Amino acid sequence: MNHELSRRAKHSQPSMIREILKVTQNPDVISLAGGLPAAELFPLKELGEAQDRVVAERGAAAFQYSVTEGVPELRAWIAQRMNGRYGCSVEPNDVLVTSGSQQGLDMFARVLIDPGDTIVVEDPTYLGALQAFDAYEPSYLTVATDADGIIPEALEAALRGAKKRPKFLYLIPNFENPTGITLALERRPKIVEICEAHDLPILEDDPYGEICFDAAGPPPPLLSYAKKDGITYLGTGSKIAAPGLRVAWTVTRNKAMHDKLVTAKQGADLCSSPWAQYVLYEFVRSEPRLQAHLDIVRAAYRSRRDAMIGALSATMPKDAEWNTPAGGMFLWLTIPGLNTDELFEVAARDNVVFVPGRTFFANRDRGDGLRLNFSAMKEAVIREGIERLSKAVREFEGAPV
Amino acid sequence: MNHELSRRAKHSQPSMIREILKVTQNPDVISLAGGLPAAELFPLKELGEAQDRVVAERGAAAFQYSVTEGVPELRAWIAQRMNGRYGCSVEPNDVLVTSGSQQGLDMFARVLIDPGDTIVVEDPTYLGALQAFDAYEPSYLTVATDADGIIPEALEAALRGAKKRPKFLYLIPNFENPTGITLALERRPKIVEICEAHDLPILEDDPYGEICFDAAGPPPPLLSYAKKDGITYLGTGSKIAAPGLRVAWTVTRNKAMHDKLVTAKQGADLCSSPWAQYVLYEFVRSEPRLQAHLDIVRAAYRSRRDAMIGALSATMPKDAEWNTPAGGMFLWLTIPGLNTDELFEVAARDNVVFVPGRTFFANRDRGDGLRLNFSAMKEAVIREGIERLSKAVREFEGAPV
Repeated sequence: MNHELSRRAKHSQPSMIREILKVTQNPDVISLAGGLPAAELFPLKELGEAQDRVVAERGAAAFQYSVTEGVPELRAWIAQRMNGRYGCSVEPNDVLVTSGSQQGLDMFARVLIDPGDTIVVEDPTYLGALQAFDAYEPSYLTVATDADGIIPEALEAALRGAKKRPKFLYLIPNFENPTGITLALERRPKIVEICEAHDLPILEDDPYGEICFDAAGPPPPLLSYAKKDGITYLGTGSKIAAPGLRVAWTVTRNKAMHDKLVTAKQGADLCSSPWAQYVLYEFVRSEPRLQAHLDIVRAAYRSRRDAMIGALSATMPKDAEWNTPAGGMFLWLTIPGLNTDELFEVAARDNVVFVPGRTFFANRDRGDGLRLNFSAMKEAVIREGIERLSKAVREFEGAPV
Repeated sequence: MNHELSRRAKHSQPSMIREILKVTQNPDVISLAGGLPAAELFPLKELGEAQDRVVAERGAAAFQYSVTEGVPELRAWIAQRMNGRYGCSVEPNDVLVTSGSQQGLDMFARVLIDPGDTIVVEDPTYLGALQAFDAYEPSYLTVATDADGIIPEALEAALRGAKKRPKFLYLIPNFENPTGITLALERRPKIVEICEAHDLPILEDDPYGEICFDAAGPPPPLLSYAKKDGITYLGTGSKIAAPGLRVAWTVTRNKAMHDKLVTAKQGADLCSSPWAQYVLYEFVRSEPRLQAHLDIVRAAYRSRRDAMIGALSATMPKDAEWNTPAGGMFLWLTIPGLNTDELFEVAARDNVVFVPGRTFFANRDRGDGLRLNFSAMKEAVIREGIERLSKAVREFEGAPV
C-alpha cells in the first residue's frame, strides 16, 4: 500500500554515519569514522551494583511510569553539579531528563522551529543536531569558526546581515563534534553578550565537557555567563557513565521554555526510564567513584589522542593540518585542495574509513576536512589506521607512497 | 528572554491526566483516574536476574550505542510471538524497537502527518495518541463505536463522506483505552477490507492484548487479516513486563514505511537503550516464565475488575451504564444526561477522582462518559472508591444519598 508521506518524511535521509558504520562490518576495516565511547572502559561493575541497589531498594518505582520531568534525585544531582563544578545557578526544577541528548535536540527543535525558520550554527557542526533540526524544515545560517571556536565578529555580522530573524544559535563549546575545537574562555562572555543583545536563544550542547584532558576542566559553560534566561544547556550521562542508559538532560532557567519542553516530551515518549535514571544516579552520587571513573576515561582518551597525533606527524604529507583537542573524542584533519568525499573511496580500498567533512557542513557546501575518532580504539589500531589513511592521501595526491 | 515558539508549541497543552495525577498527591484521595499497571505485581525478582545476566554476559554491548532498529534477539522474539500467537507473518526486519509505544505513535505521526491532514479515529480514543498526533496539527474524523468496537458501516460512511482523503485510521482493537471495549472478531476482517479498499493505512495500537482475562486470548490482530501491507502494529513490553523499561515496538511489512520510521527515530533519539532491550528479552525468552507472570497479572486484574463491577452494581443509580471488559485496565461509565466534567468537581470533594470523558473525544465535543481504572488498586480500595463515586453521582443528581 502506498503511504502518503508527510513533507518532512519525503525529504528525510538516513544518517550518512549510519551508512558508513554498515560498511565497517568488514573486520579488516579500521574505522576512524565512529562516534562511540570506549566500551571496554564502561564501569560495568559499578553499574551492576547500581542496578542491584535500584531493584532492591525501589524496584516498583523504577519499573513504573514516572513523571515526565525525571526522577527528583537525579534532577537534584544535575543542578548541584552544574552549580558546583561550573558556577551556574540552576535549580532541580530547571532540569528535564531526556532519552539521550538527541531527544533534547529533537524537543528543543520541536518547540521552536517552524518550516522556513533560520537556525544559526557553527560550520562545521554536529551531524545529529542537523538531523534532529531537519525534521522541522529550517534553513541554516552558518558562522565561521577558527581554532578558538565560533568567531564573535562573524556571529555579530551574520546576525546583523540576516534577512529573517533567526530562532536560535546552536553550538558545542567543548571539544566539538566534529572538530574537537573548544570555544576559548575569552570568547564565551562575548558570544553570550551578542546573543542577548540580539534576543537570540542559545542551545548549548555539552556532551564532552567532562572528558577534559586537563584536570582543571573546560572553561565554564555559556550558561554561567548569561544575564538573561535565553540559554538551554544539554548535558548527558552517555560520556560520564554509558550511552546505553539513554539518560541525558536539558537545563533552562526559562520557565515557559522548560514547560513547553516537558509538554513536548509527554507527547513524544511520556517519560524516560526511571530505572535507567535511578541507576545513573546511584552511579554518579558518589563523587569519588565518579571521579575515579572519569580519570580512567580521560587518561585513556588522552593517550589515544596522543597516539593519533604521533602517527599523523610521522606519516602525513607536509601540507596536512590537524588540531590537538584538549578533550573529547574527535579531531579534524584537512589537506588543502583535497576533496574528502573522493578520498573516502580510496581510503576504503585501503581498509580505513573516516567521516568526510561535507556531512557536517549545514549547507553541504564544503568538501574539505574530515573527522577522525580516537576514543574507540587502542593505540596500536589507531597508529595502523592513520598509516593506512596517510597512504591513501599520498595515493590520492599522486605522490610516491 | 522571549523565545519565539513554533506554531505547534504555541498550541500545546499538558495532558489533562497528568494534571489530575497531581491532584491525587493527597493521600485521602482514591484515584480511579490513573492508567498505571499494578506495580506490586512487577516481576522484580525475574527482572533483577535478567539485568544481572545482561551485564555479566554482554555488558559492553548493552551499555553502548546500538543500531536504531533495535537489538536482533528482541526483534526476532517479537516476530516469532506475533506469528506464533496471532498468526501473522512478519519477520524480524519488520520490527523497529521504540522507547515506549508513545514513541511509536510520535514516529508514525511524524512520518505521515502534515498540518491540516485528516486522521480517522474511534470516538472516544486514547488521549496519549491524540497528544502525539496533535504535535503535527491534523484534524480528526471521528467514527462511532458501540459495544463491539468501531462500527464498519460508520467507518465506510465516514470515508465516503470525507472531504479530504484521510491519512490513516488509528484504533485500539483490544480492551481499548478509555472504554475497555474489544473490536469483535467478525468486524476485524471487515475493517481491514474497508481500509484496503480505500487505500487507507491503519495504525493498530495493541498495548493490552496480552492482558486478556480469557485464557484463549483476544481475537487475532487486524494485521493477521491484511492482504496488503498497509498496517503498522504497535506492541509493548510495558504491560507484559514493566513500563519503566520503556521498550515497545512497531511492526510493519511495508519496507518503505519501516525505513522512514527508522530514519525518524534516528533523528529523535538515535536508539532505544540496548540494555533495557536485552533485559526485556532475557525476561520474555522463557515462555513458561512469561506465561506464569501473565497468569498472575490477568488473575489479579480480573478480580479487580469484578470488584469494580460488583461495587457499581451495588451502589450506582439505576440509569448508570457500564461495560464488563474482557481484559486490560479500564472500563467506561455513563450516566445519561450527566456532564462528567462537572461530576469531577463534586467527586473530588468526596475524595475520589476519575478521568472525565471529554478528554478522550478527539474533537472535545462530548462531555458524557468517564474512564475508570481497575488495575492499580486492590479490591477494597476499588470498592471504597466506587462507593464514593456513587455518592457523588447521587449528590449531583440531587437524589437522596
